[in-house]
Amino acid sequence: MSNKLKIAIVGSTGYGGVELMRLLQSHPNAEITSVISSSSAGSLVTDGYPHLQGIREEVLDDVDPQLIKQKADLVFLATPAGVASKLAPQYLAAGLKVIDLSGDFRIKDRAVYEQWYKKPAAEQGDLDQAVFGLAEVYGEQVVDQPFISNPGCFPTATLLGIVPALHGGIIDHSTLVIDAKTGQSGAGRGASLGTHYSEINENFKAYKVNQHQHIPEIEMVLSQVAAEQVTVSFTTHLVPMTRGIMATIYAKLTSDVTEAELVRLYEQYYEGRSFVRIRPVGQLPATKEVWGSNYCDIGFSIDKRTNRVTIISVIDNLVKGAAGQAIQNMNLMMGWDETLGLQFVPVYP
Amino acid sequence: MSNKLKIAIVGSTGYGGVELMRLLQSHPNAEITSVISSSSAGSLVTDGYPHLQGIREEVLDDVDPQLIKQKADLVFLATPAGVASKLAPQYLAAGLKVIDLSGDFRIKDRAVYEQWYKKPAAEQGDLDQAVFGLAEVYGEQVVDQPFISNPGCFPTATLLGIVPALHGGIIDHSTLVIDAKTGQSGAGRGASLGTHYSEINENFKAYKVNQHQHIPEIEMVLSQVAAEQVTVSFTTHLVPMTRGIMATIYAKLTSDVTEAELVRLYEQYYEGRSFVRIRPVGQLPATKEVWGSNYCDIGFSIDKRTNRVTIISVIDNLVKGAAGQAIQNMNLMMGWDETLGLQFVPVYP
Amino acid sequence: MSNKLKIAIVGSTGYGGVELMRLLQSHPNAEITSVISSSSAGSLVTDGYPHLQGIREEVLDDVDPQLIKQKADLVFLATPAGVASKLAPQYLAAGLKVIDLSGDFRIKDRAVYEQWYKKPAAEQGDLDQAVFGLAEVYGEQVVDQPFISNPGCFPTATLLGIVPALHGGIIDHSTLVIDAKTGQSGAGRGASLGTHYSEINENFKAYKVNQHQHIPEIEMVLSQVAAEQVTVSFTTHLVPMTRGIMATIYAKLTSDVTEAELVRLYEQYYEGRSFVRIRPVGQLPATKEVWGSNYCDIGFSIDKRTNRVTIISVIDNLVKGAAGQAIQNMNLMMGWDETLGLQFVPVYP
Amino acid sequence: MSNKLKIAIVGSTGYGGVELMRLLQSHPNAEITSVISSSSAGSLVTDGYPHLQGIREEVLDDVDPQLIKQKADLVFLATPAGVASKLAPQYLAAGLKVIDLSGDFRIKDRAVYEQWYKKPAAEQGDLDQAVFGLAEVYGEQVVDQPFISNPGCFPTATLLGIVPALHGGIIDHSTLVIDAKTGQSGAGRGASLGTHYSEINENFKAYKVNQHQHIPEIEMVLSQVAAEQVTVSFTTHLVPMTRGIMATIYAKLTSDVTEAELVRLYEQYYEGRSFVRIRPVGQLPATKEVWGSNYCDIGFSIDKRTNRVTIISVIDNLVKGAAGQAIQNMNLMMGWDETLGLQFVPVYP
Repeated sequence: MSNKLKIAIVGSTGYGGVELMRLLQSHPNAEITSVISSSSAGSLVTDGYPHLQGIREEVLDDVDPQLIKQKADLVFLATPAGVASKLAPQYLAAGLKVIDLSGDFRIKDRAVYEQWYKKPAAEQGDLDQAVFGLAEVYGEQVVDQPFISNPGCFPTATLLGIVPALHGGIIDHSTLVIDAKTGQSGAGRGASLGTHYSEINENFKAYKVNQHQHIPEIEMVLSQVAAEQVTVSFTTHLVPMTRGIMATIYAKLTSDVTEAELVRLYEQYYEGRSFVRIRPVGQLPATKEVWGSNYCDIGFSIDKRTNRVTIISVIDNLVKGAAGQAIQNMNLMMGWDETLGLQFVPVYP
Repeated sequence: MSNKLKIAIVGSTGYGGVELMRLLQSHPNAEITSVISSSSAGSLVTDGYPHLQGIREEVLDDVDPQLIKQKADLVFLATPAGVASKLAPQYLAAGLKVIDLSGDFRIKDRAVYEQWYKKPAAEQGDLDQAVFGLAEVYGEQVVDQPFISNPGCFPTATLLGIVPALHGGIIDHSTLVIDAKTGQSGAGRGASLGTHYSEINENFKAYKVNQHQHIPEIEMVLSQVAAEQVTVSFTTHLVPMTRGIMATIYAKLTSDVTEAELVRLYEQYYEGRSFVRIRPVGQLPATKEVWGSNYCDIGFSIDKRTNRVTIISVIDNLVKGAAGQAIQNMNLMMGWDETLGLQFVPVYP
Repeated sequence: MSNKLKIAIVGSTGYGGVELMRLLQSHPNAEITSVISSSSAGSLVTDGYPHLQGIREEVLDDVDPQLIKQKADLVFLATPAGVASKLAPQYLAAGLKVIDLSGDFRIKDRAVYEQWYKKPAAEQGDLDQAVFGLAEVYGEQVVDQPFISNPGCFPTATLLGIVPALHGGIIDHSTLVIDAKTGQSGAGRGASLGTHYSEINENFKAYKVNQHQHIPEIEMVLSQVAAEQVTVSFTTHLVPMTRGIMATIYAKLTSDVTEAELVRLYEQYYEGRSFVRIRPVGQLPATKEVWGSNYCDIGFSIDKRTNRVTIISVIDNLVKGAAGQAIQNMNLMMGWDETLGLQFVPVYP
Repeated sequence: MSNKLKIAIVGSTGYGGVELMRLLQSHPNAEITSVISSSSAGSLVTDGYPHLQGIREEVLDDVDPQLIKQKADLVFLATPAGVASKLAPQYLAAGLKVIDLSGDFRIKDRAVYEQWYKKPAAEQGDLDQAVFGLAEVYGEQVVDQPFISNPGCFPTATLLGIVPALHGGIIDHSTLVIDAKTGQSGAGRGASLGTHYSEINENFKAYKVNQHQHIPEIEMVLSQVAAEQVTVSFTTHLVPMTRGIMATIYAKLTSDVTEAELVRLYEQYYEGRSFVRIRPVGQLPATKEVWGSNYCDIGFSIDKRTNRVTIISVIDNLVKGAAGQAIQNMNLMMGWDETLGLQFVPVYP
C-alpha cells in the first residue's frame, strides 16, 4: 500500500482539473485517488478527455464529502466561483485539507467580494481561515496550513511583477497601470460565442476593462505590501492562443535606479524561491518561454525620458496561474520542497 | 485609352506593396500601370505571389525614375526605411506625385530621425515638402499636395485614439501610457527568427520597449496638438495573428466627463470623416472588427476609482495602417472623396 | 428610386449571411433591402456584428414571406439544414426568386437525403424545380431560373477538382480517394465544444469520416458526369484556421497523360469561366491564395511510380463555398456577367 | 559522482536538440553532460533559448569526437541530413553509442538515399551497422545495439498505422494512399519564406507531393513486412500549428473485418508496447490528444460502401516523431524499460 498523499480533484472536467491531473501524474509524493465532477459523475474521465486513455481510466465520483474523505487526504477545488464557498467548509469539517483554485476565499472583505463577483460571499470565519497562497510573498504562512486559497492567474503574474519594487519603495503606486493579456484557456471549457474559435482566431480584444474581479485581489496584496490603500488601473485582453499570461506593468520611479539594480532587487526578494526567474538586463520574457511550466519570468525596461519603468511578467495561466501553483502550495502545506513534482521544463516551441 | 490616374508601386514584393495592389484593383479612378521592385525586377509578380494569377500578370519593373515617369502619374513607395529618402526626391524631380509609406519623411527633425532610426535622414528641404498624411487630423493640408508622408501603423491607431481628448483638454498628457499590440505582418515579409512561425505561434511578446521608432512620430503630433512638448510611454507587443493593431491608451482625466460625453467629443472631432467609427458607450472594439478594412474603431472606459480613461483604438495595420490610408491620401491629393475605392467591409470572421 | 435588384437575406446572424452582406455591399446591380433572422428579429444587425457599424444599421426582419415580398425581389436562404425545405416553397409561391445555400434541395433523391441528413426531405416537386448551381459544370442550366440550390462547400472544391478529369475519361473513378480539410468557420457560429477555441487551436482532427452529408452530393454529380454510379472515399478534417478548404484528390490514371496535358484539359473544360484558375505545371495552390475571394485554384502532381494523379483544389469555404458562389448564381439567374460584384482579390497575407 | 548515463546532444540549437533537453531533464537514469553545436560553439544555450534559464546554463561545445568521448557515453545526433553520415562513424570509432535522428542511416540502399535526399549517402558498412529503431516493429533488434537510426516523423505515424493491418494480411497494399499532415516545427528552426508566420498562419498547403524523402523509408519497412515490393502514394501537407502529425491512411480491405476486429488485431500486434494506444470503435484520435507526449494514437473507420478502411494515426512530431522515440531507443539500447523518463501526459489543452 502506497504511502503517498491521496488526492481528490473536484472539477475534473474543467481545464484546471485536467491540468492538475497532468502535473500530479509524475508527483513523487502524491497520487490521485478520486476525480470528481458534480455534472458528470458516473461517466469516465476519458469520455471528456480521450487524451487520458491508459492514464486515467477511472469513473468520475460525486462531490460527497464523506465519500471523498474515505478516498483522499487532500482535495483540490477547481470549480467556478460560488461553488467552493459551499464545498470547502464541508471538506474541512470532514478532516480534509483543501486547496481552492477559485476566487471564493481570496477576498477577505465579503462586501468587496460581492461587489466584484456578483455572488454571495463565503462565511467570514471560513474566509479568515483560508491562507492566500502566493508562496513567493506569503510563503511562511502557507506551511502546515490545512486550507489554502490559490491566487488568481492575473494576480499571480501581476503581483510577482510589482511586489519587490513596491516593497523596495522605488515606485509611485498611484501611477500603476497594468495592461494584462491572456490566452483563451483562462475562460474555461464552457462553450459560448466568447470562446468560439472563429471569433477568437486572428482577433485581439479587451474585455472586462476596469471591471475584472481580479482587481480587488491585486489591490488587497499591494495595499498590504505598501501599508496603505493602493488602487490600480487594470485592463485585460484576450490573445488568440491557448495558454499564457503577460502583465505589462507601468509605474513612475521614485528613485534613480538602473535596470541592473532592479534585477538585483528582485533577485534578492525572490532568493530561495525556485519558480521566479529574473531576466538579465536587456532581455524581456515572452509567454512561450514559460509555456507548460511553473515559472514566472520577469524583465525590466526603464525609460529615462518618462521616468517610468516597464515591467514584463509572464506565466502559463494553467500552471503557475492555477494547477502548478496549487501543487506548489500543497508541497508547502506538507513541508516538502516547493518544487517537488513541478520541475517541468517549458515546452518550446 | 483610360483616363484613370496611372499608378506605380515601388516595393511590390513586400506586404505593403501587395496590399496596395489588392485595394487599388477595384479603384474606380486609378489603375496600376507599373509594379516595381529593385530586388526582383524582371521576374513576374506571380512568382512571389501566386494568388495574383490572372489578376496581375506583369513583369516587375526597376526603380528608374524616367521609366516610371513614362508609365505613371503617381508613385507609392512601400520600401524599407532609408530607401525612400533617396528615391522620393528623384521621383518628385521627374514630375511624379509621391506617397511614401515608410518612416523616412515623417520626422521633420533630422537629428530625431537619426537617433531613432539609426540611419541617415532625408534632406531638410525634402522633409519640409512632405505633408504628414494623417487625414483625420491634417486633412485640409493634404489636399492638392504632390508629396505625402503616410503615417506609421502604430501612430495611426494611437493618434486617432488620443488627439480628440488631448485637443479637448480633458486628459493630462504627462500620464499617457500607450500599450500597443500588433499582428505579425507589420514586420514585413523578410524571413528571420523573429518572423518564424514556430516562434510566434502560441506566443505573446513585447519588443522594442521604449525604443520603437514610432515614438517620436507620436510625440511630434501630440506636441503640435497640445502646443507643448508631450512625452509618452509606448510599448509594442507582438500578437500571434497576421493583421491588426490595438492601442490601449491610459491617461488621467482632468475634467469630470462621462463616457457618453467622450463619445460625443470624438464624434464631433471626426465629423465628416468616414473611416473613424466611435463605438457606443459600453462597447469596445476588437481588431477583427476592422480586419481588411480602412476603419479605425475607438471605444472608451472611464474608471472612477483611478480617474483614468482607457481608450481602445484598433486598425488593420496593412490597410488603415499602410496601404488603405495611402490610397485615402491619394484620394485627397486628387480632390476626390476620401472613401473612393476604399469602402471595403471588414472581413468577419 | 434605385433600379437595383432588391435582396433579402434569411439567416443573417450566421456566417453565411454575414458574408453575403459583405460581398453584396459593393455589388453594382443589387442592394440588400431586408436582413432576416427568425431567432433575432427585432434586434439590430450590429448587436451581433459590431463590425457592421455604419454599414448595416437596420433592424432584423422576421421570416414572413409577405413582408419579404414587399421589400425584395430575390431571397438568399443561409439557414441550417431542414429550414429551407419549409421556407423556400413559401417564398417561391410569393413570387420571389430563391437561392438556397443549405443542403435541402441539392439531393434529388429524398431517401438519400434522409439517410445522410437525418431529417425529413423537401417535397419532390420542389426538389425537381431547384437547379443545382455549380455554374462551372451546369452553367447554362442556371440562367433565367427562379430557384437555385447552391452547392456545398466540400462538393464545390471536390467536384471542380475531379469533373474535367472524369469527363475526359482519364481516371478510374473506382480508385477515387478524397481527403478534404476545412477551416473552422464551416461549422457555423453556434457555440459548442467542437467550436471551442482551446479545443481547436493547435489541433488537427478528422470528423464525420465516411459519414459526411456532402458525400451523396459529390457522388450525384460525378455519377451524372460518368454516366454510371460513382462511389468515393471521402474524409473531412478540421484545420486550426478560420477559412479555407482543400480537397486532396487521388485517382489512378487510365491513360498516359502528362501534367501539362492535364493543365490543358482543365483549362479547356473551364474556358470562359472566370473563377477557376488552373495552376501551371509544378505549382500547387494553398488555401490562403484564394482567401476572401471567389476563386477555386487547382493544381496537379502525377506520380509515375504509382500511376496516380494527386489533384489539389482549394476554395474559401465562405465565398466560393457559400456566399460568393450564391452571388455568382444570382448573376447568372439575372443574365448578368457571372463576375459582377465578385472580383475580390484574395487577401494576402 | 553520478552513476547516470552521460549524454551528449549534437545539434542543440535546433528543435530536435532542444526537445531532447526538455525530455531528458527528468530522466532518472541519464543526464546531459554536453550540449553541442558546430555553428554556435562557445555561446550559451540560453542565448538561443532563454526559456532554459536556470535549467541549462552551460556553454555549447564543439563537435570534436575526443572532447565528447571525455564527457559522454552516448550521443544523440539531431543534425540536418548529410551531417550525421560524417559524424556518426567518428563517434562510434571513439567508443560512443550513437542515436541518429536524421535520415542519413535509415535507407540501406545508397542509390535510393541519393535519389531522394540529393546528397551523398553514408558508407555501406556504416549503414549496415545502424539498426532502424522503430521499436514497436523492430523492438528486439534495438536491444543492446550501439548504433540506432531513429525513424522519421512521417514514417513513424504512417508505419505504426499500417504495419499491423499489412502484417495481418487484411489490406491490399497496392491501394494504399497516405495523406499526411504536419505542424510547422517539423521544418526546423531555420528562417525562410516557408517558415514565415504570415505565410503559414491561416493557411493550409501541400508540399513535396510525391517527392518527400520519407517515401522510401515507408516503403522499405512495408516491403519487409509484406515480403514484396510495396509502393505507396504519399502526400504531405503543412498545418498552421506548431506540433503534431496526422497520417490519414486509405486502403482496400481484402477480408471482411469489422472495426472491432481491427482494434483487437492492432492491440495484439502492439501488446506489451506502451506508447501505442488503439482507440475504441467509433473514436478517432486528434493530434492535440498526444501533444507533448510519446504516444501514437490510432483509430479506424471502415466504409462498407467502398470497402476501404480509413486509418488515422497521430503523433507529436518532436516527441514520438523525434526526441521521444530517440530516448525510447536509448532505453532499449540500455536494457531499460522503454518508458523510462518518457511518461509525459499529453498537454491538453
